[in-house]
Amino acid sequence: MSDATPPAPGPDRPREEGLVAGGAHGPGRLRALTAIVLDTLEDAAPARGGPLPAGGPEAVARNTLARFDPVLPEEGIGPESALGDLVRAVAEGAADPADPACVAHLHCPPLAVAVAADLAGAALNPSMDSWDQAPAAGVIEEATTAALARLIHPTALAPDALITSGGTESNLVALLLARERATPGTLRVVTGSNAHHSVHRAAWMLGLPAPVVVACRDGRIDPAALDDALAALAGAPLLVVATAGTTDEGRIDPLPEIARVAERHAARLHVDAAYGGPLLFSERLAPLLAGLEHAASVTFDLHKLGWQPVAAGVLAVADAGMLAPLSLRADYLNADDDTEAGLPDLLGRSIRTTRRPDALKMAVTFRALGRRGLGGLVEHCVRTAQEFGRAVDARPGLRRRPGDIGISTVLFRPAAADALPDEAGDAVVAAVRRTLLAEGRAVLGRALAEDGDGRRRLWLKATLLHPDAATADLLPLLDLVTAAADRAAADHAAAEAPAAEDTDAPLAERLSP
Amino acid sequence: MSDATPPAPGPDRPREEGLVAGGAHGPGRLRALTAIVLDTLEDAAPARGGPLPAGGPEAVARNTLARFDPVLPEEGIGPESALGDLVRAVAEGAADPADPACVAHLHCPPLAVAVAADLAGAALNPSMDSWDQAPAAGVIEEATTAALARLIHPTALAPDALITSGGTESNLVALLLARERATPGTLRVVTGSNAHHSVHRAAWMLGLPAPVVVACRDGRIDPAALDDALAALAGAPLLVVATAGTTDEGRIDPLPEIARVAERHAARLHVDAAYGGPLLFSERLAPLLAGLEHAASVTFDLHKLGWQPVAAGVLAVADAGMLAPLSLRADYLNADDDTEAGLPDLLGRSIRTTRRPDALKMAVTFRALGRRGLGGLVEHCVRTAQEFGRAVDARPGLRRRPGDIGISTVLFRPAAADALPDEAGDAVVAAVRRTLLAEGRAVLGRALAEDGDGRRRLWLKATLLHPDAATADLLPLLDLVTAAADRAAADHAAAEAPAAEDTDAPLAERLSP
Repeated sequence: MSDATPPAPGPDRPREEGLVAGGAHGPGRLRALTAIVLDTLEDAAPARGGPLPAGGPEAVARNTLARFDPVLPEEGIGPESALGDLVRAVAEGAADPADPACVAHLHCPPLAVAVAADLAGAALNPSMDSWDQAPAAGVIEEATTAALARLIHPTALAPDALITSGGTESNLVALLLARERATPGTLRVVTGSNAHHSVHRAAWMLGLPAPVVVACRDGRIDPAALDDALAALAGAPLLVVATAGTTDEGRIDPLPEIARVAERHAARLHVDAAYGGPLLFSERLAPLLAGLEHAASVTFDLHKLGWQPVAAGVLAVADAGMLAPLSLRADYLNADDDTEAGLPDLLGRSIRTTRRPDALKMAVTFRALGRRGLGGLVEHCVRTAQEFGRAVDARPGLRRRPGDIGISTVLFRPAAADALPDEAGDAVVAAVRRTLLAEGRAVLGRALAEDGDGRRRLWLKATLLHPDAATADLLPLLDLVTAAADRAAADHAAAEAPAAEDTDAPLAERLSP
Repeated sequence: MSDATPPAPGPDRPREEGLVAGGAHGPGRLRALTAIVLDTLEDAAPARGGPLPAGGPEAVARNTLARFDPVLPEEGIGPESALGDLVRAVAEGAADPADPACVAHLHCPPLAVAVAADLAGAALNPSMDSWDQAPAAGVIEEATTAALARLIHPTALAPDALITSGGTESNLVALLLARERATPGTLRVVTGSNAHHSVHRAAWMLGLPAPVVVACRDGRIDPAALDDALAALAGAPLLVVATAGTTDEGRIDPLPEIARVAERHAARLHVDAAYGGPLLFSERLAPLLAGLEHAASVTFDLHKLGWQPVAAGVLAVADAGMLAPLSLRADYLNADDDTEAGLPDLLGRSIRTTRRPDALKMAVTFRALGRRGLGGLVEHCVRTAQEFGRAVDARPGLRRRPGDIGISTVLFRPAAADALPDEAGDAVVAAVRRTLLAEGRAVLGRALAEDGDGRRRLWLKATLLHPDAATADLLPLLDLVTAAADRAAADHAAAEAPAAEDTDAPLAERLSP
């Protein structure tokens, strides 16, 4: 049996249709189609009328599905209609981080210049796994990763950096490299209770024992607890994973102390600086990352405080030799004789094979803004968070989590929640967030974090990553929260009240919702 | 010590500059910047003058670096200049798959409609790890993966599919899911010698024993050899990995026979259909994938025969319950009370956390072309390969690998190489490829594959993925190859000749290059 019977000869589509984005004619086609995209985006933002659509998950699903059912029809409807319908659906149903009230996550509004650069990458579609798919894109990636490596490890002799799909992949590769240095089955990973879940997930994927979790004080690893944990594991090859910019609170672990403790126990240090890393762009803020130079590897990410469209992850290593375990030979991509003849071997630069040229948008952004420009945007976010924190402090109806603001993350809760027992108060905080989401008025995050009395409580989280938004743009959020909290507390009181009053009602009635 | 000292207050940049791509004003900014991108792409393709730049790696590196040194300046040069310089660099230095002479790899020219859709995703920047970052984009992903799941497992009761970064991640997750079903440390993976390197890499990453490799006949797994291999591993939980569209030859393993053998040994079946999967879009070609319905999981990829810009990977599973090991709780993304209150939990849909909305461009493409339109493009590529193969057969200076053409991959070599001993002949084949690359005239691939006499020889590989290119557009490749082969053979003869003649020359002279 032939495994590829040719289809019966048939008339080809007429060539003049022209389908592809590249070549000499692609840009003309793209001009017409991107115009539809941009017009639709321009219409949809005001139509949405807020940072996200109102109505909650069910309404969003209904409205979205109405625009493209079925997703895979037998006959197509043409590129113009398909683009118009689906771009409208995704835009009207977006949680748009360009809206100052969209502050839940490390989810940045991307810079227009980075998005435009990304379009060039998509149109040319270089794949970063071999020179003959990405001649110039490979050079751009090499120069970009070299610059990042020098930024992150300025005093190392041979630093290097890889492009990744994000902090999760960076942490995974960091643990993989550490695993490969050790005798199989011996590596132990030690991290803080403040670490990102991807550290635990990476250990699981790699077949390593679950990381040993060290206690935190005020959201940061306690070096004494780390010392004890490492002592208890003496003899095993050890990797300490610290965080520079925790997801919940934006806190930076005490890196110099952690580096000293790690060195004392001959442990290698990885720092997850997915959030905090770009502080390095700012001369004024870079000192907050003192100690980072002791890390053998660093997770860095430009789709958070670097304002790139996803994905723009980085893993930096102090020594290029650390990357040797990733080297790989595949005859079709990097045959020995090709490599000897001078064709660069790109395959050992990732755990992925086909890869988009994410370095292009980073390089364009670096050139457009310069280090100083990027540093200025980071400073803007840090300053805005400080000002927003002071605004919270000035509101009688709100309370900020005691202590420092971490990078650009402000935790606060309504006083109405404080007036209730812990569980009920936390429920009010969660309800405020969900109410504002359902009303389409604000996208706030949530975090469990230590309060002044040492108890963990639920907080609303504002992760301020907007490089343009001023503090004044953010203040309406505070009004929204206090109003929603008053309603949630009233709802809570109403829900409690009948339970006390109706104790004589028949059982069935009391159990009904 | 505060871990986030505020920078000294300073004047913010003027707000009217406007940096971000989203919101109501972003599309206007993007319009200006994407115009620069499209104008530059339009200029650069003719300036390149071929499918890739001439001069080879050193010249490309020199010309590329000249346009953006240093990559991270202290002061920025502005978005317009940065975009102009770097887009010109990446385009003039591209190996553009939109050129019919760029056929080395499973590296497709993306459809303009998919690239335009991707622009909307980048501008809005939804992240697919939580509902409150991607309300509508999550719905679009769910509908798209549901349609793919039904396409791939049409008779399954509860099929499902995940979006991945490509075939490598799909294979990794497939092996991970199989590992998690088994008692820790017991799973054995069995695959063909024709499998993609990512199968081996996945086993390594996951801490599994190296896969057992089964012999192939004519580039396809030999079911009898598979039977023997599985029998030898009796007692262990087993995963068989077959391929539908091998990277080197486009061959499809005999899936019905493999499924029967696997079932007999209670082995689970994964099929890597990264290349061949889209044959399903064509009614005429779908029967080539008979047996796929027996696979518990299937790697599928739309950045090959689906003409998406990277990344557009898929992993389909016959039963949604298989995905349970990926489920994950992270309080900030999918707290229990949020999920109970109806916020969809997206976190267990990937091994990544932050993810780009790759389903959007797939959905737009599906709607634009329909299943029939996509099937027509797949048929076009298959038909073109058959015609190209016949054209090779008609050239006395070329020889096609005996046997069937796999999907859209044609292997051939110059007769000039056949006239030489094996090693020298293979060297001529490799030299032809490198010469055409260095001259900027053609991007051909290479593959080691069995010849008619059973010996493995090196072949030139043409992977025909261009949905618009006609066979006539490809024929100039054959002239380029025969001419380059004649030169390479002459060079080889010249290099051999002096060694015989100069045996009396002084030693130093003979050793000089």
